[in-house]
Amino acid sequence: MSFVPIAVTQGDPAGIGPELALMAYATRCSHDLPPFFLLSDPAFVARIAANLALEIQIESTTTARARDVFFRALPVVYAGRPVASGVSGNPDAADAPSTLTSIEQAVECVAKGEARAVVTSPIAKSILYKAGFKHPGHTEFLGELAHRHYGGDYRAVMMLWSQELAVVPMTIHIPLSDVSKRLTRELIVESGEIVARDLKARFRVENPRLAFAGLNPHAGEDGALGREEIDIIAPAIAELRARGVEASGPFPADTMFHKAARAKYDVALCPTHDQALIPIKTLAFERGVNVTLGLPFVRTSPDHGTAFDIAGKGVADPTSLIEAIKLAGRMT
Amino acid sequence: MSFVPIAVTQGDPAGIGPELALMAYATRCSHDLPPFFLLSDPAFVARIAANLALEIQIESTTTARARDVFFRALPVVYAGRPVASGVSGNPDAADAPSTLTSIEQAVECVAKGEARAVVTSPIAKSILYKAGFKHPGHTEFLGELAHRHYGGDYRAVMMLWSQELAVVPMTIHIPLSDVSKRLTRELIVESGEIVARDLKARFRVENPRLAFAGLNPHAGEDGALGREEIDIIAPAIAELRARGVEASGPFPADTMFHKAARAKYDVALCPTHDQALIPIKTLAFERGVNVTLGLPFVRTSPDHGTAFDIAGKGVADPTSLIEAIKLAGRMT
Repeated sequence: MSFVPIAVTQGDPAGIGPELALMAYATRCSHDLPPFFLLSDPAFVARIAANLALEIQIESTTTARARDVFFRALPVVYAGRPVASGVSGNPDAADAPSTLTSIEQAVECVAKGEARAVVTSPIAKSILYKAGFKHPGHTEFLGELAHRHYGGDYRAVMMLWSQELAVVPMTIHIPLSDVSKRLTRELIVESGEIVARDLKARFRVENPRLAFAGLNPHAGEDGALGREEIDIIAPAIAELRARGVEASGPFPADTMFHKAARAKYDVALCPTHDQALIPIKTLAFERGVNVTLGLPFVRTSPDHGTAFDIAGKGVADPTSLIEAIKLAGRMT
Repeated sequence: MSFVPIAVTQGDPAGIGPELALMAYATRCSHDLPPFFLLSDPAFVARIAANLALEIQIESTTTARARDVFFRALPVVYAGRPVASGVSGNPDAADAPSTLTSIEQAVECVAKGEARAVVTSPIAKSILYKAGFKHPGHTEFLGELAHRHYGGDYRAVMMLWSQELAVVPMTIHIPLSDVSKRLTRELIVESGEIVARDLKARFRVENPRLAFAGLNPHAGEDGALGREEIDIIAPAIAELRARGVEASGPFPADTMFHKAARAKYDVALCPTHDQALIPIKTLAFERGVNVTLGLPFVRTSPDHGTAFDIAGKGVADPTSLIEAIKLAGRMT
């Protein structure tokens, strides 16, 4: 498996994704990166490199030859659709087919054994929507592609990972006032089981310790500040424990993330988006990696967006992509 | 003013408050602490010191002599009620009068000019309630005492302060599902004005920069993930700016707290308790200080509770109390 390269998707060609792939390739030795190839349009990638005056060799190749190419040049595998516009900082719906094809091809590669993992570059949903994209986001699209190639249904769980801390937001992109009704016992149990299973299988944590945060201040203070902890979260934790998952909590979220507290668990699962993302972005900004658990393959991605405002200027920071590639390598 | 000592309240006598005052006194030279006195029952304080085998001199004295005493012994000023029980780790409602009298006396001292600031030790509300205490907490009680001694009405605003970060939770001890209806434009404007005024007056920040967090993930993403940012928070910020306050936001809470982001403001104001307390406790656990803004005097307190489980064992960490005393000194 370790000889099979990782597939990196193109992302929105007007964003920072393509230049970060080039910059990450330039650090392959200093960061000891596992072999990877970029699924994109080779002519477009060459143009990005030339615009940035990057001294990086690029080679149009196939998945089969990508690993050998990697030692002398960034392997670019044609995903099947040319980049029509591809002007840094000027997103264009005409480029949506190239963005989407790259993702589809990445999953096909991993399903066929031509890639060992998928690392996705950032996309702009609003641009894709204009071109008819129907999914709420990257993750749901990957879930559908998993179904297409592997059969079965997959519930994807987003984890943010860094050396310091791993967190799972149990609700994500919904208004805060909807969290209480979306936070069901089923959601918590299902999330906990997926996380425990994938930490075991992918991160080789023998007996993963899952710590759950409460929803309310001070985890509800025995019901005085809200009842979700008593009615929903604690019973879900008890159910997980009955199923053999080492789950603990609910704990007050504010005292879960200092160094001594972090030593007591492998991953923190939080009811809200901000409870989970505030501590990891405070501790490890630009080093956090987005990992999708629950899929039949490994998928990681950098924890930032397309950053159209700085695309093509050579100032974007490749750290998160580098960490995403390293983690995908380690997980497979 | 710098010759006037700081009044430290006793807190719950069964908690860690009294021993922390002793331990803080022991570090007065290494931490260059301003003179302070403890408002308590001198016989009780001597017993706590003896139980812990602390080699610390204690002297029963008056507020007028406290500053001179401070150089040779911890000045303990009798607050007017003896500690009836005072067994570490065993809170007793019979001790509530001594706890409350200490707070009342502290405010009277500061109102009379006998103390320059009030530092409060932790209390246990559930114990005080059994003894008939009617206030939701410390802060509201201090508001009433301010009214008694200074006239006028005071809206207290809680700020958590550390070297790294200062935060204000705009809602505090309420269920998360109530936050949206409690977060009004008036609340935000009033909080912002009090914070800006007190940072100027007490922290000598000439033109305080206030950064407001959004309530929803990604600050609502232009309304797609909730409308509070558009309907409530942004108009409140505009109103504050019109009144001359350097207010900015609403920003996505998750990207407000890494080092580069923190350099752009003096204080972050957050809609929820956890949005504010997670980052400061992640960055500065045990070094955070609770500061009450909006009162006619300076009040700080350590950012921890009574910790009955470890009281009397000599293992409690005095860092937060030391920081609270230092900050009270600096603010006056």
